[in-house]
Formats: sequence, C-alpha cells, structure tokens
Amino acid sequence: MKRVKIVVAYDGTNYCGWQVQPNGLSVQEVLEKHLSDLLCEEIRITGASRTDAGVHALGNVAAFNTSARMAADRISFAMNTRLPADIRIQESAEVPMEFHPRFANTVKTYEYRIFNRKFPDPTKRLYSFFYHYPLDVEKMQRAASYLVGEHDFKSFCTAKPEVTNTVRTVYSLDLKREDDMITLRIRGNGFLYNMVRIITGTLIRVGGGFLEPEDIPKILEAKDRGAAGETARPEGLTLVKIEYV
Amino acid sequence: MKRVKIVVAYDGTNYCGWQVQPNGLSVQEVLEKHLSDLLCEEIRITGASRTDAGVHALGNVAAFNTSARMAADRISFAMNTRLPADIRIQESAEVPMEFHPRFANTVKTYEYRIFNRKFPDPTKRLYSFFYHYPLDVEKMQRAASYLVGEHDFKSFCTAKPEVTNTVRTVYSLDLKREDDMITLRIRGNGFLYNMVRIITGTLIRVGGGFLEPEDIPKILEAKDRGAAGETARPEGLTLVKIEYV
Repeated sequence: MKRVKIVVAYDGTNYCGWQVQPNGLSVQEVLEKHLSDLLCEEIRITGASRTDAGVHALGNVAAFNTSARMAADRISFAMNTRLPADIRIQESAEVPMEFHPRFANTVKTYEYRIFNRKFPDPTKRLYSFFYHYPLDVEKMQRAASYLVGEHDFKSFCTAKPEVTNTVRTVYSLDLKREDDMITLRIRGNGFLYNMVRIITGTLIRVGGGFLEPEDIPKILEAKDRGAAGETARPEGLTLVKIEYV
Repeated sequence: MKRVKIVVAYDGTNYCGWQVQPNGLSVQEVLEKHLSDLLCEEIRITGASRTDAGVHALGNVAAFNTSARMAADRISFAMNTRLPADIRIQESAEVPMEFHPRFANTVKTYEYRIFNRKFPDPTKRLYSFFYHYPLDVEKMQRAASYLVGEHDFKSFCTAKPEVTNTVRTVYSLDLKREDDMITLRIRGNGFLYNMVRIITGTLIRVGGGFLEPEDIPKILEAKDRGAAGETARPEGLTLVKIEYV
C-alpha cells in the first residue's frame, strides 16, 4: 500500500465543482472513476480545496491510497491519456502515508481575472468576469492593502455552520492591469467559503466608485456579510497553487 | 438604404468557420439570423476574412446594406443582447455604399499561440495549441525573419484552383515567449489559404530542431506545399484585426 499525491489542473466550466454532488458531474468523481479504471481497484481521493461550480484550478492537490504496483510518477502520464480534455494531472508522486492534503499547513494562491472594457471578448468569457464600467485599479489596490495581514474575515465569507473561527491571514493581495484584463492575485494560509469572490466583489465596488478604500476597515470590523460587496461570479476565479509549508 | 460595417469577435470553437456551410453552424449564419430579426428585413453580410472551423477572431469585419432606421452605431449594442455568448460585435458604423470588406486594401494581423510545456493546462486548451517538446524560440525567430517581405508563398498555402497569384507581403512576423506561452504575431497585406497555420507548423519544426532557420529560403524557392511543415491546428489561431489602409 502506498499514498499518492496528485496535482490537478481543470477547466471548471462544465463541472458542478470539485466535490461529488447529486446534481451534476464533479471533478473528484471523474478522477476517481479513471483512477479506479487505471489501477484496477476502487480509489477514493481527498482533495485539498473543494472549488465551487465553474471555478478553475491550475494546481489543486489530492491524495489517495493504492496497492497497485504502477510507479507513482507514471500515474500522471497514464491518467492524462484517459481523462477528458478539461482535466489534466500535472504531477503525481508518492508521499508519506500520513499526508493529508487539507489538514496540512499550506499557502494557497488564487487569481481572479476581471475583463474590463466596453464590449466582451468571447475568447475571454470562460476564464474571466466581464465588467464594462471603468474600474480604478489604483483605488482597488489601496483598498486591497487593508485586507493584507491577519484579520477576522467574517464579513467576507458565506456562513457555514461548522466554521466558527473566521480569522485568516492574507500574505499578499495584488492587482495589476494588462490592457483590458485586471488580475487580482491573493496568497493566504486558508480561505473561507467564497472569501476570494466576496473580496473581489467588494474591490469591484471600490473600483467603480461605490465604496472608498477607507471603507474596508469598517467592513472588516462589522463582521457582517451584508457590509461587503457581491460574491463575484465563479468563472473569473482560478486556484493557482497550493504550497505545503 | 445605408451600408453598415461591423467588427466582430468570436470564439470559433463551436462553429464550422465564418462562411455558411451545409454541415455545421457558421458565424455568418448566426449574425445574419440575428441581424434579420433585429432589423426586420432579410440581411445578407459580406465578411472580410472567411476564417476556418475552430479559428477565433477578435476583429473580423463584415458589411451589409439595410433600409432599417436604427442608427448604425446602435446596432452593436442591440445585437449583443441577442447573440450567443461566443459572438460579440465590437463596433458598428455607417460606411460609404461602395465599401467592400474583402476587396479593399487592408493590413491583417493574426496571432498563433503555442502552449509549450510538459503537460497541458485545460484552461488554455481552447485558445492555443499544446506542444510538449521543448521549442527554441530564438531559432524560430531567425527562421521567421526569412518570411518577412514580399515572397511567393506557394509552399505555405493549401492550393485553391481560383488562386493563381501566390505572392504576398508579410510586414512583420514576431515571436515571443511569456512563461509557457509562445505567441507568433504576423502582419501582412493578405494571407493565402492556411498560410498562417502552415508558417506556424514549419516554425514549430524549426523550434524542435527538425529544420534549420536556413532551410526557410529553400522552402520558399521550392514553391511546393510538400516542402513546408504541417498545417498547425486551428484552435491556436486568432484573427486579431483588419486595418483598412
């Protein structure tokens, strides 16, 4: 018996998210089916991040146990010939039996892309959020700076009954504009449910002039989801990488 | 009666190309249907570039005549509420009755994107060509320099019986690598059938070490399609813009 870690990239457009759901096809389900076929035994995987429907990943992480003899580093190649084109394993490696992708200490990096101009570009629509009102990125960056550090992000998450501690640390939160694409990149030690999308929705309100950068500390203090902006749409969000530290 | 020019962006993934075909849905067909519905008369459009199945466009150009009273510059907004998400009009404007999008003098710009690393990124698969052997971009750039200028590109096109003059002028042909994405950008006064894709296929052979940059002049001289490389896949190609000069 050995334990294998896989790093997985996927286009979330056609999935109900990472986790198995009754009402749609999940990334986990597709991986488990093809791993089970490949390794000729029932495989159950544990994912690091349960991304939502429509959210993309370049480097989500999962792990599973197997008694199959195939070398762990060959599993990526063998799986990529079987998987649908919208899921690709980037790496497979043997890890200690006690490795748990979710309960280990990690630094996660997400990107949210906002396509900001008069008319949409159809070739960008699946991997960014189209927003046609002008956005002031400099103001958004100033607002973002208030979110860096350790804070109670209760205002910036969708409540889940099992989550009682809403303090998280954001290591960096940077925005840049390249032509019409604004990319928000955030690194942290963990993210609450919808946290990146609510931060983005709030920064879009700042960029559009509906909030001031100086409102961000008040929103944090409010500890009330109603104080922050909308949950930005899923297609703009990509889980870039998970570092085990 | 007035003549209207439209600039159209589309994701070519789900179309059989620009031009109406018996065996699939074309971009032209979708535009004509929605223009006819919007303007309450039968609209027939003439496109500048008949892009192939799977090829994308950020700025293809088309023109049509209409007796409808809607202001030409409002047609873009009205159409974009009706069109499927993979087609968006970027601009609509009244033009002289004699304007012909294809027979006017133009400078066309195309981009071909090659995603070059070990494993595919599913979020790039629809808008680039995945190639996993290492490519030497510096060599590809040297090879490309032989194609700039006025040449007989007979070796770099798929023959069409009606095309007898295969001399074209390439104004520039530049390659750059950003992380794992190599972008080839080519500007010229006109392109033969499959010309950009055959140039790309040939430069990939150079980048992979199967041809030398110095082979390019010989391929041009051969005036034989068999001397050049493969026709690169359509999904990497985007018609960026058409300038009327």
